[in-house]
Amino acid sequence: MTTTAAIIGAGMTGAGWAARFLLMGHDVRVFDPDKEAPRKLQAVLENARRALPMLYDTALPPRGSLTFCKTISEAVAGADWIQESIPERLALKRKTFQKIQEHCTPRAVIASSTPGFKPSDLQGCATRGEQIIVAHPFNPVYLLPLVELVTTDANPPALVARAEETLRGLGMFPLHLRNEIDAHVADRLMEAVWREALWLVRDDIATTEEIDNAIRYGFGLRWAQMGLFETLRIAGGEGGMRHFLARFGPCLHWPWTRLTDVPELNEELIDKIASQCDARSGAHTIRELERRRDENLVAILRALKSREAAAGALIKAHEARLRPGRTATSTPLITVRRTVPIDWTDYNGHMNESRYGQVFSDAADEVMARIGADADYIARGLSYFTVDIHIRFRAETRAGQMIRVETRVLEGAGKKLRLAHRMLDDETGALLAEAEQLLIHVSLKTRRSCEPEPQIAARAARLAAQTGQEG
Amino acid sequence: MTTTAAIIGAGMTGAGWAARFLLMGHDVRVFDPDKEAPRKLQAVLENARRALPMLYDTALPPRGSLTFCKTISEAVAGADWIQESIPERLALKRKTFQKIQEHCTPRAVIASSTPGFKPSDLQGCATRGEQIIVAHPFNPVYLLPLVELVTTDANPPALVARAEETLRGLGMFPLHLRNEIDAHVADRLMEAVWREALWLVRDDIATTEEIDNAIRYGFGLRWAQMGLFETLRIAGGEGGMRHFLARFGPCLHWPWTRLTDVPELNEELIDKIASQCDARSGAHTIRELERRRDENLVAILRALKSREAAAGALIKAHEARLRPGRTATSTPLITVRRTVPIDWTDYNGHMNESRYGQVFSDAADEVMARIGADADYIARGLSYFTVDIHIRFRAETRAGQMIRVETRVLEGAGKKLRLAHRMLDDETGALLAEAEQLLIHVSLKTRRSCEPEPQIAARAARLAAQTGQEG
Repeated sequence: MTTTAAIIGAGMTGAGWAARFLLMGHDVRVFDPDKEAPRKLQAVLENARRALPMLYDTALPPRGSLTFCKTISEAVAGADWIQESIPERLALKRKTFQKIQEHCTPRAVIASSTPGFKPSDLQGCATRGEQIIVAHPFNPVYLLPLVELVTTDANPPALVARAEETLRGLGMFPLHLRNEIDAHVADRLMEAVWREALWLVRDDIATTEEIDNAIRYGFGLRWAQMGLFETLRIAGGEGGMRHFLARFGPCLHWPWTRLTDVPELNEELIDKIASQCDARSGAHTIRELERRRDENLVAILRALKSREAAAGALIKAHEARLRPGRTATSTPLITVRRTVPIDWTDYNGHMNESRYGQVFSDAADEVMARIGADADYIARGLSYFTVDIHIRFRAETRAGQMIRVETRVLEGAGKKLRLAHRMLDDETGALLAEAEQLLIHVSLKTRRSCEPEPQIAARAARLAAQTGQEG
Repeated sequence: MTTTAAIIGAGMTGAGWAARFLLMGHDVRVFDPDKEAPRKLQAVLENARRALPMLYDTALPPRGSLTFCKTISEAVAGADWIQESIPERLALKRKTFQKIQEHCTPRAVIASSTPGFKPSDLQGCATRGEQIIVAHPFNPVYLLPLVELVTTDANPPALVARAEETLRGLGMFPLHLRNEIDAHVADRLMEAVWREALWLVRDDIATTEEIDNAIRYGFGLRWAQMGLFETLRIAGGEGGMRHFLARFGPCLHWPWTRLTDVPELNEELIDKIASQCDARSGAHTIRELERRRDENLVAILRALKSREAAAGALIKAHEARLRPGRTATSTPLITVRRTVPIDWTDYNGHMNESRYGQVFSDAADEVMARIGADADYIARGLSYFTVDIHIRFRAETRAGQMIRVETRVLEGAGKKLRLAHRMLDDETGALLAEAEQLLIHVSLKTRRSCEPEPQIAARAARLAAQTGQEG
């Protein structure tokens, strides 16, 4: 269902929201008094357009429309979702909410991206406090799934449910906090680390780069998949969490951290941090670093997706929702439609040859699903294995390119399933590769070939009759 | 160069060290008075044997030997590296170091895994304080590269250099801290988060699972690749770090975190945390969770490796050191020898068909390198592209299996390079797949076919003459 989202304030965070709504098929209206806002938003959108589709092994819905509005009233009129991402000043936010509520429908969800304020702070002076919630995302908003959804008793359960559903539809994970607290949860954890890190830099124990290395070569890798508690539970070994706590407890009283004080963030400390950071990566523009960050995130998220773990499991579930329903049989069949992700490219700058095999393997999976050899069938211990494939490479394929595969079933008789695939550029129709693939039906118990179940054999034969001849 | 490592204390951390030394080809002697130590170490070793080789696209060196010793003296006599990982009690550690130094050579590095003590604490009462350093690793030691290397002025630079070299040889990243401090760097950061998390759980703001989700769906993903400062530098947008600090600075004085107090870790809070953790993953054994964590880490690290980013760049550099030197031309050529990583398997429980293509693509890269079409040649704008491959799948291949590819150059004339590959189980020699592959020489500027440089053409022809006929 296409909805209209109004983005009020289009800095880094607002622009990230705009990109996610657009790429997931919603119409977006943007209000930001900054004259530079359209240019900055386009830059974020360009990053998002490149990165977000790569997370999915299916095409995203057609993009929504983007409109810049001159006034808040124009942006919010009739909008289903209004996302406020303006500077962190309570009075300004309250004034903005009043303006929004003068012009929006009472049914709309008004969500604030605030990292610090509680929803009750925002609802306080509003005409209809009940439609205001906190939906605090994390940059880059178009890639990270977390959004802290904070509500109060004033918010009707139906509105909260609608908010959760909208966020899930965007591929996000609404972490619903029922007890509001300043700075919610994630920023409190980050601030604790931030303070300690400032001390370490100030006292010359470590540089900013050394601190980053301490994180990304160590616990950062653990936290990306399991977080804090689950990691420690495992670290407790066979004794589990209770054993870990018993061992760790006393250490809490050791004078390890300097958490009680706040270092003064004076010119000297700012200089030190900024120049250490610049020494490390100052040769690159922020735009280049953003691109690099996004490509790393795509690679990590796709890795987790292949394991159906952590954030990867979220993407996998979202993808199942995005995948188009199986259409009536066309000739040839469209068996794959997707973007080429960054981790499929190699040193020649194009899609590695083995990934053509990946695409044709996915195309064969789609044929299998169409004849009923789907996940359930495989769980019953039956499947098809490829025994022979011949691929002819016709043109180079690059990261970000939209491709589709057209497949004909040349033979579907007994144990044999023989397929002919053509991989095309989805926009131009240019031929990228062709393949002929022979699959044999097998028992996953004996790992030997065997006859398929009769209904599968019948459907394979029918599909061969329908699609086997050149159109 | 094979060295001998003595592992004093073989709990989770000591066993992890033992596994890393063994799998990187060193002989290991273990001392631990716990009767259960051999069983527990075998369990860790089993996990490590499965996970660590998957990080590399080349075979690891032959494993070292493992010996359990009845005494410290037996373990450390003649050892090059002595790793102490006993309980965190200073008096006990000092006594152990005295015992070690009675029997080890003065040249040996004695490294403590201590998460808390400064090296000067440990050197204090020692006979030869100068050979004692801190090398604090992170679990799982066999997968995470970070090791905090903390030294004092008492340590000779040559010994510190040798320690760094040994750690790098193990595939680890020695973060050398020159200013010692209680708890070093990483644990101080983690403790800050830990304290804040305890408050959030105690006050019922969030459950342990919600906190883990706040981390792994959000900033955990950023930290795994860039750490804290680099992430924030980018978040500052076009203004960079200075802009970010100016905006963020004032927030430090907001009463967001409850860092000044330590929550009492009483029975009630321990119960709450342990039972929340058990509710989430208590149905799985710690062993299962370890396996899952390791597979996730392998997938994340391999993803970063494909981007040559963060911890993945370290593995890539280490792999270059591990890759065997190019041997004299054999017939057929051995072009690939490696372990099948976990992210290459699919829903059928075996290596996905496209990864056979990956293996043959890698085999072709090795042939290219042998005829001089290497990274430098590609940087000069010339390369070979595959235009046709025909793969016959003969047997299933599974994660963890050691494979090798034997390649013959059927034709190496003009623009054409035609290869025949056989992929075998490296232990049994069983045939897994065969392929015939045609590559065409191209200009990376015009993206069209062209003649190779003469010396490349000559070498291709020679290799075809040497290897092209059936042995």
